[in-house]
Amino acid sequence: MTFDLKDWSAERLDRTEQALSAWVPTNAPADLGDAMRYAVLDGGKRLRPLLVLGACEAVGGNAEAALRAGCAVELIHAYSLVHDDMPCMDNDVLRRGKPTVHVQFGEATALLAGDALQALAFELLTPADARIPEHTQARLCRLLALSAGHAGMAGGQAIDLAAVGKALTESELRHMHRLKTGALLQTSVMMGAACGEPDAQALAGLREYGAALGLAFQVVDDILDVTADSATLGKTAGKDAAQDKPTYVSLLGLARARAYASELLEQARAALRTTGLADTRALLALAEMVVHREN
Amino acid sequence: MTFDLKDWSAERLDRTEQALSAWVPTNAPADLGDAMRYAVLDGGKRLRPLLVLGACEAVGGNAEAALRAGCAVELIHAYSLVHDDMPCMDNDVLRRGKPTVHVQFGEATALLAGDALQALAFELLTPADARIPEHTQARLCRLLALSAGHAGMAGGQAIDLAAVGKALTESELRHMHRLKTGALLQTSVMMGAACGEPDAQALAGLREYGAALGLAFQVVDDILDVTADSATLGKTAGKDAAQDKPTYVSLLGLARARAYASELLEQARAALRTTGLADTRALLALAEMVVHREN
Repeated sequence: MTFDLKDWSAERLDRTEQALSAWVPTNAPADLGDAMRYAVLDGGKRLRPLLVLGACEAVGGNAEAALRAGCAVELIHAYSLVHDDMPCMDNDVLRRGKPTVHVQFGEATALLAGDALQALAFELLTPADARIPEHTQARLCRLLALSAGHAGMAGGQAIDLAAVGKALTESELRHMHRLKTGALLQTSVMMGAACGEPDAQALAGLREYGAALGLAFQVVDDILDVTADSATLGKTAGKDAAQDKPTYVSLLGLARARAYASELLEQARAALRTTGLADTRALLALAEMVVHREN
Repeated sequence: MTFDLKDWSAERLDRTEQALSAWVPTNAPADLGDAMRYAVLDGGKRLRPLLVLGACEAVGGNAEAALRAGCAVELIHAYSLVHDDMPCMDNDVLRRGKPTVHVQFGEATALLAGDALQALAFELLTPADARIPEHTQARLCRLLALSAGHAGMAGGQAIDLAAVGKALTESELRHMHRLKTGALLQTSVMMGAACGEPDAQALAGLREYGAALGLAFQVVDDILDVTADSATLGKTAGKDAAQDKPTYVSLLGLARARAYASELLEQARAALRTTGLADTRALLALAEMVVHREN
């Protein structure tokens, strides 16, 4: 029987949206809650939560922990977009087809909403009353903190800032993207795994899968920035070139960038085979979706 | 024998400074690490770490956990100052007698450094190899996330933003400060307590102590904003009035604000007596210091 990602995703996306809507506050002071909900709800592919849920299912982990972990990673992703779009960073006005948070709510509220979303991510991971062992909670916090901070996403953004207008080598570009986008995607997989107790072999395979998928995501992002239009992307197309940012396309050209994305998909597939896990079809289908997506 | 806060603090401040210097990275990409260290090191009274350490000692808790918890709270405090000082918020150029982070490193790096400091706080609380039980790690993350986010510090800042130029009642002002400054100070006490296993009575007393101290801190801050000069404060004096922000002084007048601070100190003292803990002298002395400080 073939695996249908759309079928598999539908129920999980539904669960994720409901959880996010329940957990991102409606009653935060002033317009903070509105800005947080605007930044998170009704938008996004929810790739990271799906990776968490897929990895958790592959290792037979705690589903409630995975739902919280998936939402927590999504909040970190959402906050990074809010801050990234601000005038002092990318100064972008369009995101997921809507005005960006600072355009809608003002810069100060956008700054605070991003900050509060990061805190909320760790709040979701540490419920006092839920059926999630505290050692799982601690491990999830550890993984998320490491991938969001100076050695992960924030560090990658700092490299990105410093790289504008500079020529990077392929290895420098890869390092930047491993931190900036790859760390959080890989961590999504590892957080899903941390909801169960996989053996060392499975863990190593999942880590490799996550690394390949994370990099593939960015290579395809760079390709789409050139080949797609803003309406399809839901964000401003062509902005890498406009801002003179180094990308896989500027470095390798379009054809080689596409070949590299296919190669990374092969790496992800091979890594899944080494895990020894019985059913990794969802994770495989997610990697294929990342490489073949059109927005 | 009388208790000497200066003696008690000296070794603990030393330990805190060394830990912060060891844990805030020197090797983060581009100038991210420099900005993070600039924001955290060589400055600040370290009131929050001292509260964590004092509360941990009062309950006989795990000293290594308390050192990490104290540094984590200080990182949250430091990141909030970095973001608060940015042009879209308070637009301040002086902090702890030095140019603010965005003046020194640019707005984009200041934004990222604040974000990375928040993540680092949770990283410090969840070491993989340290002798801190994972249930303690989870509890510390929970306390910190709650007090930093929409229901704590970030929420208080949102009220603050919305309150500029408005007349607040005393109860609205108190609510704002309980969130904006009080939550993190009270949580410092509760995180210190969470490093041990205090009984319910001790926990309740410490919670009340933390609430009184947190509010007292802000009342005194409002007083000093009027009575001290910028050189003594190490930050711009008189800016509340200049920005037409409601304060305890604008609401109560100077004399009644001072009386209120004394009353809160009495509340803190009384709360400590209800804890049943053998030695709360450091916590008492810290409350006295908060109320009687000159900067």
